[in-house]
Amino acid sequence: MKASQFFISTLKEAPADAEIASHKLMMRAGMIKRLGAGLYNYMPMGLRVIRKVEGIIRGEMNRAGAVELLMPVVQPAELWQETGRFEKMGPELLRVKDRHGRDFIIQPTSEEVITDIARQELRSYKQLPKNFYHIQTKFRDERRPRFGVMRGREFTMKDAYSFDRDVESAGRSYENMYQAYCRIFERLGLEYRAVAADTGAIGGDRSHEFQVIAETGEDAIIYSPEGTYAANIELAEALPLLSERGAASQALTKTPTPGKSTCADVAELLKLPLTQTVKSLVLAADETNEAGEIVKSQVWLLLVRGDHDLNEVKAGKLEGLKGGFRFATAAEIDQHFGCKPGYLGPIGLKREGEGSVKVVADRTVALMADFVCGANEVNAHYTGVNWGRDLPEPDVVADIRNVVAGDPSPDGKGVLAIQRGIEVGHVFYLGTKYSAAMNATYLDENGKPQLMEMGCYGIGVTRILGAAIEQNHDERGIIWPDAIAPFTVVVCPIGMDRSEEVKTAAHKLYQDLMDLGVDVLLDDRGERPGAMFADWELIGVPHRVVISDRGLKEGQVEYQGRRDAAATKLALADVVPHLQQRLK
Amino acid sequence: MKASQFFISTLKEAPADAEIASHKLMMRAGMIKRLGAGLYNYMPMGLRVIRKVEGIIRGEMNRAGAVELLMPVVQPAELWQETGRFEKMGPELLRVKDRHGRDFIIQPTSEEVITDIARQELRSYKQLPKNFYHIQTKFRDERRPRFGVMRGREFTMKDAYSFDRDVESAGRSYENMYQAYCRIFERLGLEYRAVAADTGAIGGDRSHEFQVIAETGEDAIIYSPEGTYAANIELAEALPLLSERGAASQALTKTPTPGKSTCADVAELLKLPLTQTVKSLVLAADETNEAGEIVKSQVWLLLVRGDHDLNEVKAGKLEGLKGGFRFATAAEIDQHFGCKPGYLGPIGLKREGEGSVKVVADRTVALMADFVCGANEVNAHYTGVNWGRDLPEPDVVADIRNVVAGDPSPDGKGVLAIQRGIEVGHVFYLGTKYSAAMNATYLDENGKPQLMEMGCYGIGVTRILGAAIEQNHDERGIIWPDAIAPFTVVVCPIGMDRSEEVKTAAHKLYQDLMDLGVDVLLDDRGERPGAMFADWELIGVPHRVVISDRGLKEGQVEYQGRRDAAATKLALADVVPHLQQRLK
Repeated sequence: MKASQFFISTLKEAPADAEIASHKLMMRAGMIKRLGAGLYNYMPMGLRVIRKVEGIIRGEMNRAGAVELLMPVVQPAELWQETGRFEKMGPELLRVKDRHGRDFIIQPTSEEVITDIARQELRSYKQLPKNFYHIQTKFRDERRPRFGVMRGREFTMKDAYSFDRDVESAGRSYENMYQAYCRIFERLGLEYRAVAADTGAIGGDRSHEFQVIAETGEDAIIYSPEGTYAANIELAEALPLLSERGAASQALTKTPTPGKSTCADVAELLKLPLTQTVKSLVLAADETNEAGEIVKSQVWLLLVRGDHDLNEVKAGKLEGLKGGFRFATAAEIDQHFGCKPGYLGPIGLKREGEGSVKVVADRTVALMADFVCGANEVNAHYTGVNWGRDLPEPDVVADIRNVVAGDPSPDGKGVLAIQRGIEVGHVFYLGTKYSAAMNATYLDENGKPQLMEMGCYGIGVTRILGAAIEQNHDERGIIWPDAIAPFTVVVCPIGMDRSEEVKTAAHKLYQDLMDLGVDVLLDDRGERPGAMFADWELIGVPHRVVISDRGLKEGQVEYQGRRDAAATKLALADVVPHLQQRLK
Repeated sequence: MKASQFFISTLKEAPADAEIASHKLMMRAGMIKRLGAGLYNYMPMGLRVIRKVEGIIRGEMNRAGAVELLMPVVQPAELWQETGRFEKMGPELLRVKDRHGRDFIIQPTSEEVITDIARQELRSYKQLPKNFYHIQTKFRDERRPRFGVMRGREFTMKDAYSFDRDVESAGRSYENMYQAYCRIFERLGLEYRAVAADTGAIGGDRSHEFQVIAETGEDAIIYSPEGTYAANIELAEALPLLSERGAASQALTKTPTPGKSTCADVAELLKLPLTQTVKSLVLAADETNEAGEIVKSQVWLLLVRGDHDLNEVKAGKLEGLKGGFRFATAAEIDQHFGCKPGYLGPIGLKREGEGSVKVVADRTVALMADFVCGANEVNAHYTGVNWGRDLPEPDVVADIRNVVAGDPSPDGKGVLAIQRGIEVGHVFYLGTKYSAAMNATYLDENGKPQLMEMGCYGIGVTRILGAAIEQNHDERGIIWPDAIAPFTVVVCPIGMDRSEEVKTAAHKLYQDLMDLGVDVLLDDRGERPGAMFADWELIGVPHRVVISDRGLKEGQVEYQGRRDAAATKLALADVVPHLQQRLK
């Protein structure tokens, strides 16, 4: 491609609403152009990156035996009513009525439509397993779209759906996609981590997020640098930090702690380590009747060590809280603790019968001795608290906290570390959630209908652009991995209008690289060197060759990799072999 | 591709709602699957065709210097309000409100968004000309979607938009796209015709439709078999069929024609040729005040020969009817003609002043002598009518009729013929319609802002599938042109499970063709020969090779082109060269 036949539009300054590096750089490099809140035009430079990302995804999906089709953007509400998602999904689901007043949605994903296809097309066990995918425009009406393509409203996504005859086969389909995703992210040239993720309400134990590592990532990734363990913070298991409970050595003592309503403040006042304190969190779970009216509420006290944080996803897995929970109201707390928050604790609570409080201790808290907690009296805490002696054992002991860096790794290999990531892919074992709701069955060997086991597998195509940039940029601009750069090589002639030698050499190099199948751009715009270099460093083309009159006089051109500190002088004849070496 | 890794799903019967061949065959061949009215899933077999069509379009657009980008499906209403299309367009424009109640539309085309991009990005004459295109999902909420992909609601379209500094340059951009479209339809392997089309309200004289020739086409294409003239019926010029007006030879005579209210009936009754009669059509044009109230209506009488039809598009170009017209009401006709329709004519009308009728004669009618027309009296016609003698000359003589086969060609070369076509592409010179509405200007050499001259260029990607099938099918199924067939060659082994020789030969041929870059499918499903052949004839793969045990014993395989009457026996070693020859 020659620059004069393309469209290049760079900006010195990013618009004010661009908060993060990828958003700023994509706007400045002319990759995207804002059309409205969360809506972007993909300009020619950005579209080239999208097409390369799509090409890699498509190649690996096909290699994994998945079959591409294309489902509409506008989908009838009926199917979404079959699964209940038309009603259940919030306003992020864009709903629209056609000219006849019939309900439609703009697809955020396509579970319903693909299950509708599967229940009609996959009739026999002989047709299974099958994996269908498409790469299509999606819409999610985010309440607060921001960060450019990272949280846009309209975006491109690759979504795949597998259909299997049983759980075992579904496991193989899942593993197949997991491996395909690893190959995709390898080929994209991104540093990534596949982390075990929570499966939420659907259940099952198979869900992995594919996270692109970046300091600016929204997600915390927990991993074992010495082992293979990796999970997101919602799922990562927190082992107890004590091997057994120590013996009680202090007397239970009520201590005045005026105005000290946090563990940190209390520890400081009492000159005790924060790890000696226990934090009290009060939840409530409501029971409702068929009319949806609350008939009973159970209050729960959850205890984590003072330096730890409650993990609400883990709390939501406790028997009794699975159906949903909320934080208790001030009135409920007053009724059950006779005190206001900040001084709450597990001592002296009604633990049985009507109006009782269920006490859950984190694994570590359950093994603590001589600990500090609120006295259920304003401006007072207990010290020297011991389970069994000062209060009954907890009703439940469970992992209910977020892990922290330095926690032992669940795989027994060293301690956990935390890094930040951007979720760009997700593989998910769905089980029969959708096939049951939509009666998607196949006939087994005995001619008996059986529900299909499903999995879904998504990659945010446009989001990958943002994630790649968050991971790969510097103060001058983007640094694309070779595989997804808008152009792999840029040839920059200096003074092409003045020098026939420069013009000839530049065109020859351009043509030689084209002939070798290298995605090369010849910058024939006639820009000044400074502006030209600034453009390509901003746009992030990974390999640059500069051809100048002065260099040619010595038979030389300059090569510079986007991450290289300085340019390398090369003989004109060596530049193609050098590039071939670098592009390997 | 091996069939076992793909998805093939054919039907014996087409669904009842499929009316035309392409719709029936696409459903039966498993190319598309209905999701809702006018909404189709593109199944794997159909998507392959789409991708090939897109590839050809993209290649030729890039070759023509157009630059690809991607504009969103969901677009803010604000831009559509700037041009007035948000209000003006009917319910075929799908409107939607987001969670904040803001108006959006699902794009049917993208003139507004591209003009918004151009007015921001194309600031100087140095950046012009520029042509941007995208291939994107479109939605048009058809009142009555039907005919499968031919009149669907959601469809894929390639739309391009050119921006030029002046009319002359815009003409070159138009010609460039016209040539690119010719190359595209050549490469698609379709018989097509570029026909001059009406430019409607926008004006300008440059608009061409690209019509795929098919007997079932909705559009009438007028062309000169001996010359190069081609236009659609709305535009095709109708020359006068008489060179000069003959002398009056009959007396004006009122003749009773009881119950004969059509020219055909009158001609039959009077034993005169239909070409001697004149048909009267009464129109009215309203003048309105600023409040939109009708302040005055002018009645028009349009005269065409009895065997001709009025062309309303041509009528709409007459001075006085440009602003819009309607057929006159019964009351208006009674007031001006004193008669009811069926017996109307141009004699005895008030031709001047308040309450007058304007008389327009078609070019041929203006040259007729001794003609027959209504007498403005029920059950009576005049014969022997002559201009000048029996009534004043017409106020206007113009081309106001549809051409018919046999009319002289406007280019002077022979006579016109009519064929049916399916519109799949349209190139259109827009002038400043959108740039003026949205103030899209560039700075000229003198730093003065000038409106950009625009053109738009569309191709219905998904519609091409339907048009290609309407043109290329037989009673057994689809006959794809090589360039867009889902697979170019299918290798059909018979009894691969029983014969190691067949298996080896089939896999080797498959691999050899793959290595040559031929898009080949190996049918390893193990279907019976009859079912297998029926599938591939239905799906329309253009080249088939059958490998059987019996044939191999004689060292032979069978080749059959989809249009061939019978199979050709070939030595196994000759099949690859033979295919290469056929695929040239």
